[in-house]
Amino acid sequence: MYKDDIKAIQDDYADDFAWCYGCGRLNDEGIHVRTVWEKDQTISYIHPDKKFTAIPGFVYGGFLASFIDCHGTGSASLALHRKNGHEPGVGVEPPRFVTASLHVDYLMPTPQGVLLKAIGKVEEIHPKKFKVMIQVFANDLHVANAEVVAVVMPKSFLKS
Amino acid sequence: MYKDDIKAIQDDYADDFAWCYGCGRLNDEGIHVRTVWEKDQTISYIHPDKKFTAIPGFVYGGFLASFIDCHGTGSASLALHRKNGHEPGVGVEPPRFVTASLHVDYLMPTPQGVLLKAIGKVEEIHPKKFKVMIQVFANDLHVANAEVVAVVMPKSFLKS
Repeated sequence: MYKDDIKAIQDDYADDFAWCYGCGRLNDEGIHVRTVWEKDQTISYIHPDKKFTAIPGFVYGGFLASFIDCHGTGSASLALHRKNGHEPGVGVEPPRFVTASLHVDYLMPTPQGVLLKAIGKVEEIHPKKFKVMIQVFANDLHVANAEVVAVVMPKSFLKS
Repeated sequence: MYKDDIKAIQDDYADDFAWCYGCGRLNDEGIHVRTVWEKDQTISYIHPDKKFTAIPGFVYGGFLASFIDCHGTGSASLALHRKNGHEPGVGVEPPRFVTASLHVDYLMPTPQGVLLKAIGKVEEIHPKKFKVMIQVFANDLHVANAEVVAVVMPKSFLKS
């Protein structure tokens, strides 16, 4: 699990962009994905609530997709923030990404009651577009592979 | 929207398989995706709760992925059920599918407060594996394209 005092990129999102169901710290009903660096990889952990059931005993695939989605945008934000010379916790607002595409390969059923870990490797496609290759583990079980393409939030996402 | 009396495939899933957060009629905390035939296409509607926010005013991408996921497995179930000579509501338990892979291309931000519609076209890959091509609309806005590969639930999904 995370070290106690580690700052995640989502902790630094601007308040206006911190309402996401998947990763917004201000969304009281959300699932609060938090993403950090671990050497040159990105890491998120989550413990799914029991309501996120597929078949009793196994985690809902849509929950995994949500976990992956926000791990992807968080990873892209970490990468561009670092490229810009910043790390989470330094008091600089990070870039906010949105998902252009999401692909998940479900490798096996994901057991409930287990901490899930997503590991990401980030690749810059162009300055505003990043690809994140993701593996998801439930303890030792490698349950999913995924790819998220994330882009810096377009202005069309801001309400007029 | 659906006709009042139309039966969805999820209405006929066996009780043991009706706890899915996305489409299980027995999961009181779930989102209750329901999928029906409309000629040779499959249709699901959903009205996202406001908590499923991305940025205020727009629907969370992970919610769309969940909607798509269960529309995909429901569509595959409808197709195999029909191939076996049955329609929803005739009192025959349909086959239950799980997701092998999920791909979503997000075409534009999805506005909140709007009924969403998923339209699916199902293709048999082999007798236990179906591909569903999906378009998602928010009123007239075409907000996402997706592909779900669904397989008949393997025995490994049943708890021992």
